[in-house]
Amino acid sequence: MIRPTTFIEASRLERHLGVELLLASETFQQTGSFKFRAAYNLVSKVPQKLILTASSGNFGQAVALACKLLNKSCIVVMPSASARTKIAAVQEHGGLVEIIDVKQISRAARVAELAKEHPEAYVASAYDDPLVIEGNATLGRELSKLEGRVDCFLAPVGGGGLTSGIISGLRQCDSRIPVVGVEPQTANDAARSLKAGHIVRNEREPETLADGVRTVSLGDHNWKILQGGLQSIVEVPEAAIAEGVRLLFNFANLKAEPTGALAIAALLANPEQFKGKRVCAVISGANVDPELFSQLISGGDSKAAEDCRSPKPSEFRARE
Amino acid sequence: MIRPTTFIEASRLERHLGVELLLASETFQQTGSFKFRAAYNLVSKVPQKLILTASSGNFGQAVALACKLLNKSCIVVMPSASARTKIAAVQEHGGLVEIIDVKQISRAARVAELAKEHPEAYVASAYDDPLVIEGNATLGRELSKLEGRVDCFLAPVGGGGLTSGIISGLRQCDSRIPVVGVEPQTANDAARSLKAGHIVRNEREPETLADGVRTVSLGDHNWKILQGGLQSIVEVPEAAIAEGVRLLFNFANLKAEPTGALAIAALLANPEQFKGKRVCAVISGANVDPELFSQLISGGDSKAAEDCRSPKPSEFRARE
Repeated sequence: MIRPTTFIEASRLERHLGVELLLASETFQQTGSFKFRAAYNLVSKVPQKLILTASSGNFGQAVALACKLLNKSCIVVMPSASARTKIAAVQEHGGLVEIIDVKQISRAARVAELAKEHPEAYVASAYDDPLVIEGNATLGRELSKLEGRVDCFLAPVGGGGLTSGIISGLRQCDSRIPVVGVEPQTANDAARSLKAGHIVRNEREPETLADGVRTVSLGDHNWKILQGGLQSIVEVPEAAIAEGVRLLFNFANLKAEPTGALAIAALLANPEQFKGKRVCAVISGANVDPELFSQLISGGDSKAAEDCRSPKPSEFRARE
Repeated sequence: MIRPTTFIEASRLERHLGVELLLASETFQQTGSFKFRAAYNLVSKVPQKLILTASSGNFGQAVALACKLLNKSCIVVMPSASARTKIAAVQEHGGLVEIIDVKQISRAARVAELAKEHPEAYVASAYDDPLVIEGNATLGRELSKLEGRVDCFLAPVGGGGLTSGIISGLRQCDSRIPVVGVEPQTANDAARSLKAGHIVRNEREPETLADGVRTVSLGDHNWKILQGGLQSIVEVPEAAIAEGVRLLFNFANLKAEPTGALAIAALLANPEQFKGKRVCAVISGANVDPELFSQLISGGDSKAAEDCRSPKPSEFRARE
C-alpha cells in the first residue's frame, strides 16, 4: 500500500547549490506526502473504527484515505488557513472536515471536545504517537540503503513525526548516518527545545509559509528520539523556503509544497555547514494550492540571495 | 549516464480520468526530458567533435550536456519562441545558441548554412537519425517490463523520434503492447500522414502550446517504423493540453511541460477510446517557463470540460 520513496538526482540543482545532492521525494507517495506511512500504520493497527484527528491537511488526507482503504471513518479538524487543495482531498476520500479558527480554539481543544462526543473513537496525533513514528520509520529503513552514499539527511521538523521516524528506521537498520532537522525561524521551537534540554512550546501556532510545520511543540514520543538522535537543526528564513520551492521547480522539475522545500532552504540558509558533503534532502510533500505555487515560482531572481541566508549561525549541535 | 524512467502511480488522477493509469515520467531524466537518451547515444557514437543541430530546446540542451560530458562542442539553432528556460539550459551546458526567426528562415535552412561553414561537423536531427531512434529505444526496453500490466502506451508525436524509439525498444524485447501517438490538432501532420500512407508536411512550423512537437513533418527513418508500428494517433485540442498540465500538477504532483502532458490530453479528448484500459502515459519532459506554467495551472475549473474533447472521433487506426 505504501509506495517507496522516489529518489531523484538533480544535477542542475546540485550545481546551483554547490553540494552533492540526492532528493528523496515523498511527493508521489499516496496522498502526496510522507504522512500516509504514519496514517496507514496507525489506522490499520488500532481497533477503533472511528479516528479523530487534527491536521493542517497532509495527515488529515492520509488518515482519510487509510480509513477508506480499511473501511473505517474519520473526522479531521483543520485550521481555516489550510491549503484548499488539502481540505478538498480529505473530503474526496470521504473524511469529515471540521474547519476551525485557531484564534478562537486550538486544534487540540476542538479534538478534545469531539473525543467527549465520540468516546468510541481513537484520537490520533499527527506526530506524537508510537504508531505514527513506526509508520514513518518505513522511510528511515528505505533511506538506510544509502549507507556509504550520503553523509547526512535533511528533513523538516514540525511535531517531529518525520524526523523521529527516519531516525528510528535508520537505527533499526544499523545506519548511523546523521539526521539534521530544518525549521522555519518563525517556528523554531524544536531548536529552542534542543538548546533548553526540554520541550519548549510556542505560545500559539506559528506563522510560516511552511504550513506543515505550524505546530505548537514537539510531541513527547518524538522528543525522546530527537533529543539524542538529531544531529542539529537549521533554522531558515521565510525567503529561503520560497526560494527552495522555486529552485526545486526550475532546477529539479519537482513540485514541492513549502514544507517540502525546507531541506533545500537549509542548504541556502547555511551553505557552509554542508559544503563538500553528500546530502540527501527529504522532500516531504507537494500539496499546495496553484495560486500560492504560482506566486512562489514567479518570484525569485529579484530577491537578494542574502535574504535566504540565516542572519547568524543559528545551527545548534545537540549533545549525543 | 542515462537515468531510468520514473514510474509514478497517480490514484487521484486515475480516478479523475476514469482509466487505470501509470505515468512513465522522463521529467527527471538528465536535462529534464527523454531527449538525453537520443543525444547521449548520438554524441557518443559519431566520430565528429562538433555537433550542429536545430531544436526547440529539449534536444538542444540534451546535446549540449552530452557534448560537455563527452568533451565535444555544439551549435544549437533555436526558434525565437523557444521557452527561455530551454535556451538558458543549453547555454549553461556550454552549447552555443543561435536564435532564429522561423518566419524568416527555417531551422533546417539555417543548419544547412552552418554545415557549409563547418564541414567538419556532424549535423544531428532531433528525430530523423537511426542513432536518435536507437537512443530512445532504451526507454522502449524499460517500458517492455510492463508487459502484462498495461494495455497500451500513449506518447507525444512531433518528428516521431520518441514513438519510433519506444516501438523499436519494445519490439527488441518481444513486447507487442500497442503504442498510440498523440498530436495537437493544429500540428496533426502525423495523423494525416498515416491516413495518406506517406509523409504529409505542414506548410510551416505549426502553432501549438506543445512547443516540443512544432515540427514540419515526421522524419523518414521515423516514418518507416511508425507507419506500421503506431496503433493510432489521437489529435487533441489546445484546451486539453492545458488541462493535462493542470491535472498532472493538481492530481499527480507532477510538473510537466505542455508537450509532456499530451498523453493526458489524449485521455481527456477521447475518453471512450481508453475506457477500461490500463494505460501507461509517457510524460516526455518538464522544461517550461514559470510564467507559462503559472498561467496553465491557474486556469481550468472555469473551462468547460467539453473544450477538451475532440470535436469528432478523429482517431485513425493504421493498417498493421
